[in-house]
Amino acid sequence: MERMTRIGRVAIVGGIHGNELTGAYLVKKFEQFPELIQRPSFETLALFGNPQAFAVGRRYIDKDLNRCFGSQDLDNPTLANYEECRAKTLYQILGTNGQFPADLIVDLHSTTANMGLTLILGNNHPFNLRLAAYLSSINPLVRVYSCGVSGYSNIVLRSLCQLSFSIEVGPVAQGVLQADFFRKTEELIHAILDYLEVYNQEKTTQSDRTLTLYQYVGVIDYPRNEHGELQAMIHPQLQGKDYEPLHPGDPLFLTFDDRAIAYEGESVVYPIFINEAAYYEKGIAMCLTEKYQLTV
Amino acid sequence: MERMTRIGRVAIVGGIHGNELTGAYLVKKFEQFPELIQRPSFETLALFGNPQAFAVGRRYIDKDLNRCFGSQDLDNPTLANYEECRAKTLYQILGTNGQFPADLIVDLHSTTANMGLTLILGNNHPFNLRLAAYLSSINPLVRVYSCGVSGYSNIVLRSLCQLSFSIEVGPVAQGVLQADFFRKTEELIHAILDYLEVYNQEKTTQSDRTLTLYQYVGVIDYPRNEHGELQAMIHPQLQGKDYEPLHPGDPLFLTFDDRAIAYEGESVVYPIFINEAAYYEKGIAMCLTEKYQLTV
Repeated sequence: MERMTRIGRVAIVGGIHGNELTGAYLVKKFEQFPELIQRPSFETLALFGNPQAFAVGRRYIDKDLNRCFGSQDLDNPTLANYEECRAKTLYQILGTNGQFPADLIVDLHSTTANMGLTLILGNNHPFNLRLAAYLSSINPLVRVYSCGVSGYSNIVLRSLCQLSFSIEVGPVAQGVLQADFFRKTEELIHAILDYLEVYNQEKTTQSDRTLTLYQYVGVIDYPRNEHGELQAMIHPQLQGKDYEPLHPGDPLFLTFDDRAIAYEGESVVYPIFINEAAYYEKGIAMCLTEKYQLTV
Repeated sequence: MERMTRIGRVAIVGGIHGNELTGAYLVKKFEQFPELIQRPSFETLALFGNPQAFAVGRRYIDKDLNRCFGSQDLDNPTLANYEECRAKTLYQILGTNGQFPADLIVDLHSTTANMGLTLILGNNHPFNLRLAAYLSSINPLVRVYSCGVSGYSNIVLRSLCQLSFSIEVGPVAQGVLQADFFRKTEELIHAILDYLEVYNQEKTTQSDRTLTLYQYVGVIDYPRNEHGELQAMIHPQLQGKDYEPLHPGDPLFLTFDDRAIAYEGESVVYPIFINEAAYYEKGIAMCLTEKYQLTV
C-alpha cells in the first residue's frame, strides 16, 4: 500500500452509549492516567461520549448519539436535542478543523451478543485492513466486521475520519461492568497503540497478511404483528452463535407457542449481533454477513 | 403443617420491571392463551406489571415499581408518580379487598447475575417452604433464597399476600428475550400450578422434604470514591459464581489498576445477585447469604 503520512493524533472514545460500561470506564481510567495511552510518536486523547446518558444508566437521553454524525446533521442548527448537541461538540473537538483533529478514532462499545472482541470497520481502507489483520493474528478472539455498505457508516462517530473503527465486546449486559472484558479491551487498545507507534517509526514487519473479514449483507428483524410486537424470539440453537455459519433451513426464531421458523435465504451467511438488546427498537434481530479470506 | 383453606386465586405477574423481558413476554403469552394457566380447582390471572416502562425499554419510568407496595405508601394520596399510581392499581386488583384478591402471587423477574432459576421467598411460611422443596426436588436448577430480613420485603409486590414469591432467572441481559429462559420459566410456572392443583385436591404426597435455603444476611457495595463513582469491579474469579462459597480472603473486587480486594468477613458466605445491573444505583454489588439445610 502507498505510504501515508504518519499518525499524529489518536482519539479513544468510550461511553457513546451511556449503558455500555466497558468503554465508559476505560475512558475514565485513561482520563485519570493519561500516560497509559501516550506513545512517543503521537498524541492520544481519551474522550467520554455521552456523560448525561451514563449518569442515568441509559443508552441515550433523546436519540442514539451514534446516529448523529451525518455531515448535514452536524451543520443543521435546528437539531438541538441532547445527543444532537453532543455530536456537534465531539465534532468540534475531533473533526478536521477541530481542537484535536484526529487521524484515527477508536470508538469503544459493548454488546449483549456473543461478539467476542469485534473490530468494526466503516470502510476497507488498506491501513484499516492491515491493522485488523495484525490484531487478529495476535489474538484469536478478534473478529473483523466491515459494515461499509450498511447505510449508516456515514452517520456514526467513526465516520469523522477514514482511519477509524469501533470495538464491540460481548456478550455483556447493558449497565454491567465485567472485569474480563475490561481487561481484554484494554489489552487490545494497547496493542493498537503499539502498532501505530511501530507504523510511525516505519518499522512495521507484518508477516501475517491474511485476514478473515465478515462483510455486511443485510439485517433480519424479529417476526412482529401489525402493532410491531414480537411474535417470536431468537431460536435457542442460534443464540450465542455469532460468526458461525447459518445454512438455508436452519432454525432462526422460535414462536411463543414453540414453533421454529427457519432461515429461508439461498446461501450460507454468518449472523452477528444476534439478540443485541439495543437493536430491538431498530428492527434488527441480527445482522447477516458473508465471510471472506483476504490478503491485505 | 396445619391445613390451610384451599387456594382459590393465583396471580402471575410479569413486567414489574419493564426491561426484564422473560416475565413480560410470558404474561403476554398467558394473556393471549389464558387456558394455559387455568387449573380445575382455582382461577389464575396473568397481569402485566409496568406497561409504560416496557414500552420504552426501561426498568421504570419514575421509580422502581417493586419498591412501591408499602402499605403506608399505598394509602398515601400524595404519592402520584407513574409507578406509585401503578402500584395502587395493582393493589386494587390483587389486594385483600380487590377485584381479584389473590391467595398466591408469582412475580416474574430476570437478572444479569448467574442466578439460574431462583425462587425468592419473602417469608418462611411452611407452605412456601414446602412448595420450594418440591420445585427444587424436581429441577436441579432451582435455588431458594429467603430475603425476609432484608428490610424491603414489605414494600415489594409479593408482600401483598403471604403465599407469594418471586422468580428470578439469569444470567440474561436487560432488554433481551432469551428463549431458553423463557421455556424454563414457563415450565416452572406449570410445575407450580400443577402443585397447587394437587394441594387443593389434598393429594400432596411429597416424599422429599429437605430444602437447601439461602438466607439473606447483608449486602456489599462496590468500592466508590467520594463522588459515588466506582473504584473497582467484581473480581473475574467471582463473576458468575452466585451460590458458591466465598471464604474470608477470597478476591471480591478488582480495581481499575488491577489490584485485588479481598473479602474481609469472618465466615463463609454465599453471594448472590453478583453484578446485577439494576443494583448499581442501589449501592449493591452483591447480596450475601448463609446456606441452610432444612426439613420442611
